Amino acid sequence: MTEALAPMTGEELEAKLRQIGAERYHNLHRFHRRLHSGQCAYEEVQAWALNRYYYQSMIPIKDATILTRMPNSADRREWRKRIEDHDGSHEGEGGIERWLALTDSLGFSRDYVTSAKGILPATRFAVDAYVEFCRARSLLEAVASSLTELFSPAIISERLAGMLAHYKFVSQDTLAYFSKRPVQAKRDSDFALNYVKAHARTRQEQDAALAALEYKCAILWAQLDALWSAYVDGAIPPGAWVPGKTLSEQAA
Amino acid sequence: MTEALAPMTGEELEAKLRQIGAERYHNLHRFHRRLHSGQCAYEEVQAWALNRYYYQSMIPIKDATILTRMPNSADRREWRKRIEDHDGSHEGEGGIERWLALTDSLGFSRDYVTSAKGILPATRFAVDAYVEFCRARSLLEAVASSLTELFSPAIISERLAGMLAHYKFVSQDTLAYFSKRPVQAKRDSDFALNYVKAHARTRQEQDAALAALEYKCAILWAQLDALWSAYVDGAIPPGAWVPGKTLSEQAA
Repeated sequence: MTEALAPMTGEELEAKLRQIGAERYHNLHRFHRRLHSGQCAYEEVQAWALNRYYYQSMIPIKDATILTRMPNSADRREWRKRIEDHDGSHEGEGGIERWLALTDSLGFSRDYVTSAKGILPATRFAVDAYVEFCRARSLLEAVASSLTELFSPAIISERLAGMLAHYKFVSQDTLAYFSKRPVQAKRDSDFALNYVKAHARTRQEQDAALAALEYKCAILWAQLDALWSAYVDGAIPPGAWVPGKTLSEQAA
Repeated sequence: MTEALAPMTGEELEAKLRQIGAERYHNLHRFHRRLHSGQCAYEEVQAWALNRYYYQSMIPIKDATILTRMPNSADRREWRKRIEDHDGSHEGEGGIERWLALTDSLGFSRDYVTSAKGILPATRFAVDAYVEFCRARSLLEAVASSLTELFSPAIISERLAGMLAHYKFVSQDTLAYFSKRPVQAKRDSDFALNYVKAHARTRQEQDAALAALEYKCAILWAQLDALWSAYVDGAIPPGAWVPGKTLSEQAA
């Protein structure tokens, strides 16, 4: 029956997008509550940082995938800022480098982290699904899937305050990734929200944009489900990082 | 150092492939132990069948993807039997139809099952990763990833006996899918094993084949992790099927 419905106004569409965040964004996941409230064991924070690195490392690949699909310079100029943020302009800069400072501080070697050998298969499947979504779906859906950043400034300030208050093994320095993100995320999500409101004109396009944001929320949620199952519940799948083992004892 | 190693013999390669099964095949997963030993609640069996349908439904897509990459008729003739097994030759035949007989018997409408609306996102990510792997990697790796069928006849007989003994709500009829599979799986895995032994000549190719089988084991394992997390542990992700709700109450 979707075809018969009139398009929503931009404000209605935005309200629906924000409602998806209110209901499905991963700040609602029990792993994040555990992380932010100081209930995570050191090993659980390690596992979170190790797995989340793979997500971070694929974000510029995802954004480059979107760049390949943007027909005009003005949009590409905006979008490429995302890649600049993550990769920096010089060796030792950028969001990925800041994430590695966190995994450094948690005792992982950079070779091990960047090899992604120890990540959960479910992390890989979810993250790869995100990149593939941005390659295969419409440009509108690809842009809409980035709109989880509408909700990230709130979770990041919650995380930063909670982790600093509760864990001795993190600091402003090792969590520097997060202090940079809110301003970038705000700029990026402003652009993406305007893009989606301007380009989703039919009801079908609007519904596709909403579904894309739900899909992205599921990608974030699935990563935390897998962390919980493996490292809180203790059911580590074959081949994934095992806390307490030396790197040479980890699966090759 | 892999490059420096001599190739294994075919027997050594086969032994390594079988060892992966002995260590990583999903018959070792706690969800399967629970399923086969009668400890699953009705709703858990429903969730398993609903989610596993998506895997079944994508197998012919995966096999057609492999067909598109096979350069010679003789190999394609063998491989297309897999599609015939799943799709049948007439309406109402084939493995997918037999799987739907199972989901019918568990109270799902066919529309709901085939829409895949209620499956766990982690199921979708894992299954889609499998299809993508068979599209993007070498043909050798795609064929090697099918070798979990070397191990499936054993798990299937265990499952059939266990489920018939323990659950009143299943029968030989509703589990007909499984009685057909062992003979097909044996034929298919004989072909694929010979193919891999013949085409993986360098040590690098052999290692790639082994890694492909590990990847496939992880795909199966991740599906059971997600089922456990959602329906045994009770942490159902947003949008997935909720036991006990009517279909109209499920997320759209």
